Amino acid sequence: MADLTLTTFDWVPETPRGYVRDLRVRCALEEARLPYRVESVPFGDRTPAHFAHQPFGQVPWLTDGDISIFESGAILLHLGELSPALTPADPQGRSRAVEWVFAALNSVEMASLPWSILKFTGDTGDTPASKHLDAFLKARLKHMEPVLADREWLAGSFSVADILMSDVLRLVDRFDGLADHPACRDYIARATARPAFVKAHADQMAHFAAADRRAG
Amino acid sequence: MADLTLTTFDWVPETPRGYVRDLRVRCALEEARLPYRVESVPFGDRTPAHFAHQPFGQVPWLTDGDISIFESGAILLHLGELSPALTPADPQGRSRAVEWVFAALNSVEMASLPWSILKFTGDTGDTPASKHLDAFLKARLKHMEPVLADREWLAGSFSVADILMSDVLRLVDRFDGLADHPACRDYIARATARPAFVKAHADQMAHFAAADRRAG
Repeated sequence: MADLTLTTFDWVPETPRGYVRDLRVRCALEEARLPYRVESVPFGDRTPAHFAHQPFGQVPWLTDGDISIFESGAILLHLGELSPALTPADPQGRSRAVEWVFAALNSVEMASLPWSILKFTGDTGDTPASKHLDAFLKARLKHMEPVLADREWLAGSFSVADILMSDVLRLVDRFDGLADHPACRDYIARATARPAFVKAHADQMAHFAAADRRAG
Repeated sequence: MADLTLTTFDWVPETPRGYVRDLRVRCALEEARLPYRVESVPFGDRTPAHFAHQPFGQVPWLTDGDISIFESGAILLHLGELSPALTPADPQGRSRAVEWVFAALNSVEMASLPWSILKFTGDTGDTPASKHLDAFLKARLKHMEPVLADREWLAGSFSVADILMSDVLRLVDRFDGLADHPACRDYIARATARPAFVKAHADQMAHFAAADRRAG
């Protein structure tokens, strides 16, 4: 029996709320209907104990008994082994889910995160580096669009890969990067309409709002 | 019995040689002493068959019998399940290897790849976006340095995580980004001194050089 505790920050500023990566883990836990606790660490003062669980001083991490796991991708693969709701049972489908987990993080988010930094910093987009980073994301989205036009979920049935890919694309959409990619937008709409996402998102917002109330 | 075929490009320009991601897969296959074949697809003309294996038109991919896997991270986790030389056998060590696989790709490479694009395009580094991307990498390296000063390999014994992390850091080092990070440099030296890396690197260089000779 899994004994699961998710740790996230006690508080974050307004802007990242709804996008902090504990959301990915909450979604997986809700999809799998696994019981879990949520604990907090200070956003402001990151202790050696925090770094012992997450060497970059980030969140989230998950403990399952005496195993502590950081990196949302690693956590979701771990949870995927606990529940058929998160990973197809057949070897082909399981392999497909794993490769799309990595594709979400290492092919799409690797392009979308620097692009979102450009947007966030108000970059004018006319330096060679800006143009290169913009083209990098567009090249990835160009190939995601037919993939997502062609199937409901990446690995045949809904899986951890969809939790990650839809969350990665959601941040692109936030900065209006999907105007020419209707299949990507439809996919986000499908993923965020799921009851597990709705609850996970509400729970994250409530978690940080509670910190505001304590401070206020 | 695994039936393994690695596919990479038939040719690439000089600059990326020695850094094409089939290297990561070759390293893992050599470490595990698994027999494998290498096949090529055209660099210049990417066919629908290519996209069927790798939806972004990139390389590498690996076939194992009737399973085809793209994303170097997913391929290395698959190979990690085939050989104790690639993943610690105990659950704690295995979990540690998986989280560091993701950390290499999603915490370090996500910062180092856009940074290397800045370097490659000769970015002046004085825009807000450039400064943010530079600080993003430095924040990651600051935390990698004590981790690598403290241990020989990331998951206790050598694992697929070290193949990925050392390859990610090697590209930072190529652009002189590790001058203040001696433990990161020592780690790269340890990883690249391994016979499996030496053979994998020589094999990749020979593979692309053979294409030059055919063209010449």
